[in-house]
Amino acid sequence: MFKRIDEIKVLRDPIHGYIHVEYDVIWKCINSREFQRLRRIKQLGASYMVYHTAEHSRFAHSLGVYEIVRRMIAENEDIKIAISQRDSVAVLLAGLLHDIGHGPFSHAFESVCQTNHEEFTEKILLEDSEVHRIIEKTQPGLSKIVASIINHTHPNGLLTQMISGQLDADRMDYLLRDAYFTGTKYGEFDLERVLRTLRVKDNKIVVKETGIHTVEDYIMARYHMYWQVYFHPTARSYEIILTKLFERLRDCKKENPAVLKCVPMFGSFIRNKNISIKDHFLMDENTCFYGFTCLSNCEDEILRDLSRRLLNRDLFKYEDIINSKMIEKKKVKVSKKYDIRYYFQTDEVIQRPYQPYREDEYSAIWIAMNDGTTKELSEASNIVHSLVHGENKNEEKMFYPMG
Amino acid sequence: MFKRIDEIKVLRDPIHGYIHVEYDVIWKCINSREFQRLRRIKQLGASYMVYHTAEHSRFAHSLGVYEIVRRMIAENEDIKIAISQRDSVAVLLAGLLHDIGHGPFSHAFESVCQTNHEEFTEKILLEDSEVHRIIEKTQPGLSKIVASIINHTHPNGLLTQMISGQLDADRMDYLLRDAYFTGTKYGEFDLERVLRTLRVKDNKIVVKETGIHTVEDYIMARYHMYWQVYFHPTARSYEIILTKLFERLRDCKKENPAVLKCVPMFGSFIRNKNISIKDHFLMDENTCFYGFTCLSNCEDEILRDLSRRLLNRDLFKYEDIINSKMIEKKKVKVSKKYDIRYYFQTDEVIQRPYQPYREDEYSAIWIAMNDGTTKELSEASNIVHSLVHGENKNEEKMFYPMG
Amino acid sequence: MFKRIDEIKVLRDPIHGYIHVEYDVIWKCINSREFQRLRRIKQLGASYMVYHTAEHSRFAHSLGVYEIVRRMIAENEDIKIAISQRDSVAVLLAGLLHDIGHGPFSHAFESVCQTNHEEFTEKILLEDSEVHRIIEKTQPGLSKIVASIINHTHPNGLLTQMISGQLDADRMDYLLRDAYFTGTKYGEFDLERVLRTLRVKDNKIVVKETGIHTVEDYIMARYHMYWQVYFHPTARSYEIILTKLFERLRDCKKENPAVLKCVPMFGSFIRNKNISIKDHFLMDENTCFYGFTCLSNCEDEILRDLSRRLLNRDLFKYEDIINSKMIEKKKVKVSKKYDIRYYFQTDEVIQRPYQPYREDEYSAIWIAMNDGTTKELSEASNIVHSLVHGENKNEEKMFYPMG
Amino acid sequence: MFKRIDEIKVLRDPIHGYIHVEYDVIWKCINSREFQRLRRIKQLGASYMVYHTAEHSRFAHSLGVYEIVRRMIAENEDIKIAISQRDSVAVLLAGLLHDIGHGPFSHAFESVCQTNHEEFTEKILLEDSEVHRIIEKTQPGLSKIVASIINHTHPNGLLTQMISGQLDADRMDYLLRDAYFTGTKYGEFDLERVLRTLRVKDNKIVVKETGIHTVEDYIMARYHMYWQVYFHPTARSYEIILTKLFERLRDCKKENPAVLKCVPMFGSFIRNKNISIKDHFLMDENTCFYGFTCLSNCEDEILRDLSRRLLNRDLFKYEDIINSKMIEKKKVKVSKKYDIRYYFQTDEVIQRPYQPYREDEYSAIWIAMNDGTTKELSEASNIVHSLVHGENKNEEKMFYPMG
Repeated sequence: MFKRIDEIKVLRDPIHGYIHVEYDVIWKCINSREFQRLRRIKQLGASYMVYHTAEHSRFAHSLGVYEIVRRMIAENEDIKIAISQRDSVAVLLAGLLHDIGHGPFSHAFESVCQTNHEEFTEKILLEDSEVHRIIEKTQPGLSKIVASIINHTHPNGLLTQMISGQLDADRMDYLLRDAYFTGTKYGEFDLERVLRTLRVKDNKIVVKETGIHTVEDYIMARYHMYWQVYFHPTARSYEIILTKLFERLRDCKKENPAVLKCVPMFGSFIRNKNISIKDHFLMDENTCFYGFTCLSNCEDEILRDLSRRLLNRDLFKYEDIINSKMIEKKKVKVSKKYDIRYYFQTDEVIQRPYQPYREDEYSAIWIAMNDGTTKELSEASNIVHSLVHGENKNEEKMFYPMG
Repeated sequence: MFKRIDEIKVLRDPIHGYIHVEYDVIWKCINSREFQRLRRIKQLGASYMVYHTAEHSRFAHSLGVYEIVRRMIAENEDIKIAISQRDSVAVLLAGLLHDIGHGPFSHAFESVCQTNHEEFTEKILLEDSEVHRIIEKTQPGLSKIVASIINHTHPNGLLTQMISGQLDADRMDYLLRDAYFTGTKYGEFDLERVLRTLRVKDNKIVVKETGIHTVEDYIMARYHMYWQVYFHPTARSYEIILTKLFERLRDCKKENPAVLKCVPMFGSFIRNKNISIKDHFLMDENTCFYGFTCLSNCEDEILRDLSRRLLNRDLFKYEDIINSKMIEKKKVKVSKKYDIRYYFQTDEVIQRPYQPYREDEYSAIWIAMNDGTTKELSEASNIVHSLVHGENKNEEKMFYPMG
Repeated sequence: MFKRIDEIKVLRDPIHGYIHVEYDVIWKCINSREFQRLRRIKQLGASYMVYHTAEHSRFAHSLGVYEIVRRMIAENEDIKIAISQRDSVAVLLAGLLHDIGHGPFSHAFESVCQTNHEEFTEKILLEDSEVHRIIEKTQPGLSKIVASIINHTHPNGLLTQMISGQLDADRMDYLLRDAYFTGTKYGEFDLERVLRTLRVKDNKIVVKETGIHTVEDYIMARYHMYWQVYFHPTARSYEIILTKLFERLRDCKKENPAVLKCVPMFGSFIRNKNISIKDHFLMDENTCFYGFTCLSNCEDEILRDLSRRLLNRDLFKYEDIINSKMIEKKKVKVSKKYDIRYYFQTDEVIQRPYQPYREDEYSAIWIAMNDGTTKELSEASNIVHSLVHGENKNEEKMFYPMG
Repeated sequence: MFKRIDEIKVLRDPIHGYIHVEYDVIWKCINSREFQRLRRIKQLGASYMVYHTAEHSRFAHSLGVYEIVRRMIAENEDIKIAISQRDSVAVLLAGLLHDIGHGPFSHAFESVCQTNHEEFTEKILLEDSEVHRIIEKTQPGLSKIVASIINHTHPNGLLTQMISGQLDADRMDYLLRDAYFTGTKYGEFDLERVLRTLRVKDNKIVVKETGIHTVEDYIMARYHMYWQVYFHPTARSYEIILTKLFERLRDCKKENPAVLKCVPMFGSFIRNKNISIKDHFLMDENTCFYGFTCLSNCEDEILRDLSRRLLNRDLFKYEDIINSKMIEKKKVKVSKKYDIRYYFQTDEVIQRPYQPYREDEYSAIWIAMNDGTTKELSEASNIVHSLVHGENKNEEKMFYPMG
């Protein structure tokens, strides 16, 4: 039996009203150093450069994912019956800790430093960390179960589906949360009704046919959030400068090694040597920003300029790419004043609001039809069918300095 | 010049914050008997039988339409410049008064009594009414201009577009308002951003390309409201009973004329004689319900039963029609206990969330592309294109008593 | 054991998300004719003449009170333990049905017709009604228990406290609901937190000391709603005309009896004879308004004018009474044109946001202090103490026609 | 004349819908390095340790204050008329920039390092900064005017009143914003109505008597936010550890100077030497947190422990002080394990929700009574009078480590 807290702890949350914590192991993990570190990493990376109030952290989001998982189990008879108490604690922990390996600014940082947040999540769960010790002390072997739910190797696909299907606690929390903190309405959908219409069938979470409109609305919410928030070109501009700065740092190993001394915090990441859990723990957005502060006074002109741009939001402008000729023309122009390696970038984004078939059946969304059959969402919904088989929306832009 | 009120009048409204009234003629029309009558007609007819809080009136909605028109002009430089003060007052009045000819429960009542709310709106504007006198006193001839905007005969299509295009003040208010009062989220969209992205081009209201996602969201909001609220089968069940009751009343002229004496208020409507503005004024939902109260004690068994059902919400059940055979089978069964004329009904609903081509260009939604061209919405948006060219959603049901 | 519904029924509600119905007897009472009748009576009487969206019914409010009682029991361990299943069903029914005896426009109607909604609530619960039959069929004797909770004679004061203390489900629902439907923010307070901080001590519901700020906020919400909504002089003006019309009707028994024939629906009420449950059932706001419609064409000039005022919102104006001399002066002036009996009224309102001592201990609000003692709210809160012992706010106005 | 931007710029904001920027000088100041730095300082200091979503920055708040000032001028005829275009631009800048001198965690940092944000705000406005250059380039001398509005030396008190009276744009934005981002409802009040009821009388902003309830509600919102958010003991616990860490750092100058080398960023602050604008610019919450990261591995045990506590939210517990004896007792106990200088603290908070008389008449709230007189709020409102003359609420606690 898992120990319960005497009086349920609650944390006020604008999205869910309250986050409810019943199990001692959950409470301890929330208070662990690795989880507290998520306060220092923003959920939306550079998006607060566009939506100035999108300053919320992965800490808050992770609590939200946990809470949705908790409600899925507590309020839905089908799910409650389908899983054991141990699996229930494991999936709660998986929801809470699924982002624990994230670094600062996610993509930009990872792509250059060749780290991988999924790898680190697993490492933190399974190796030498406070979180690992807390979970193992509660029940030896539990941390492996949690890790297997997160990395899709757990034999019970239903558990994985709860935190990383296409209608999972992760996506549901971030849509609502990002909508709230950006102040847009695009991400809103009816969470209450989704939770009410979930059922378990053939050990898979399905949605009752009466809930199909709510799911369509959720798919559209994702679609709009991608184009209005996640792919906003201003945020992409900021991320491109971030990437360029890290690329420059890496190139300085050869071109200007002295300059790296002023930013010891980036050392192990630039050298791509094996990053330890301890290195990873120290690398957060505060650390990065202090690094940029140091670089804004360093001796490398490019690093000085790029870090100043990051600190003061002096971004690259952007332009739609209509033909490839304009790329070359622009490059020639930019290269007259700037090192083209760091001051020019093309970037294409493409998005499918929903993918009917992926690696496994647990990632699709399934509808339990009134007639007793189960249909994959795009076969049950005209709208989603149209979306999936219609033309994809994509957008290609080039980014370069104003002047 | 149109007389302004000394200090702007405001009416608190949950959708718009405040309704702002600046012109004396608007204020007087709001206080007219014909406009005050709209308090006695629910905006959503029978929907409050499904969503118990959808008790809002056409009065509130009409104020909301007026307010959106007002903001379109006051806050949008393009529109402000495009229309004269007289046209501006005329279109404000058209927004305010576009529903003034409505009767109780709209469809059910109109279909049987062969009245037509558009005809009555015109009549009230142009003939012997308080509203007519107020407007004509303000400027002789103005009531004709207002009527022509409402009935699409005004030479300036832009004015019509503001109150009855597919992205007009009427639809925008009712989506937001119906969402608020039903407590659903489906109808929400970003009104602020729609208003901000409207432009005038070739004397037509268009949406800037940057606003296209907001318009897609609005189209989806309409789509969902139709299926979740407006076409809800429980509301249709109530409306079918309403229709049946009025049909029975009409048939009683021959079959049981004595019974009509107890409901004098329906007299002129049942007889289909020329309905006067005065008859129309007296016919509201209070009057109908009092009539049902009278009928619930009358001597015609069918009227007694149907009115009781309306008063106490004892509705017909419904079933999807899968093949025509089941219709006949059910009819045979029902007719053993009930008069099949009044106790069985099939009903099909079909909806297109957006129609790219209708009678005139002012009803479509137009997008001003970044490249300077203007595109019809379904050509500019992949999503709307998919919706328009995908399969239509329709639903056919049959309705009959429980027992 | 009380029969539960197979799958919990839910009704969407903007205040509570959903109303959850578990017991068969609750569902049947909701569908009874007496409860459905509450759809035809507005929660706030004439307030929609000020706040045009305050069109919500006692039906919606009653469901809300039921839902808060349900949550008090389901979500609060202390309360769940303190009461038996039978008492729990009884208090749920008491919450649902506490307003079932209400007539139209409450005060105005009751004062003239000398009916009393509390008396009728008891009558409907205990005598010949559908609601009575449903409850008695579920468990003989249960209707008496429900009635005793409503009329404060039940031996267990805790049950009464849940639906008519000063921090009860009734007040909590109407504050939130009236705030939502008027579109004001004054009535908002943190219901979630109130529910979380309730405890049972000495068989009395108390609030944990940590919840004291939430309760202060609730008291202030009440205070503001009184002055901004419930006592709004425009609504009082409408109610005064209502009263005057009913007074005139009553006086016509002697002065102009012929005129009463055109409003048979008011007959038994004007004659003050014993009002039957059947009379009461038929008397709702639709009936009243149809009556006003009839009176607006009747032969009594005063009734004609007053009913026209009610239909078209042509209200009396109002003025603060500063000294008694101005009353006399105004009366002389008004009486030159009008019958002073029906065209002049003074009206004083006074309100205490909270009353520390009333008839019984269950009506006060109690705080369970951290030190283990229990204090009455005004002793535990400086703010409430100041309010209770400060000067009362009152307002005296006179009302009379414009011209 | 001040240059306007061609097309008004808007920034989406959850509190105000949009922030509207019309003047070129405002837009340039928003994009200045000093203003962008405010993204790196949280509005509520340590409160996000209690309310985990209170992660919003002074950047967002400053934009909000600007927007309220803008609306005060644009939407209120009285204020629009009362001030010149130059004063209007100056007060907009004052609203935008009033917090520009803030350092990290405000109180804790300032108290130890003896810096003062007001002094720095003035310095940045008047000395060598990007903001200073932008403003002076727009109009020589303008920066002095802006500074004088902020520091209360401008001859026109009305301008000061707009940004630092007791009903000013600063307080109004932070109440609404802090309520939104904490997810509490306590801070909500009706901003729209406050703005609508402001008037100018004797060159002072007053509130029309009809707005008095809205102002009472605002005062109560402040009261509740203080006790529920700003004075929350957990946040105070965090702040006390912050203070203790900085005190220890300062003491290390003598006791352990070597350790300071690992935190060069704190150097000038600890030495209390003249802090330059450049030092100040670099000191933000990212810098502090990176410093704590460094200290968590340093050689001073106390610094190591305190910084670890700050990083991992391992806070001091707290207890109400009932008598002074318990302080001494606790100190003895704590000092057995800990250096009492850094591991024990008493803290008293006291708050008046409104102060009728302060240094000057512009800080009070004034009500324009219907009878033509002007009254100070606590004389016009019974409730506020009770609050001001009632007993003050205060709270004294002691803080120390758990173990």
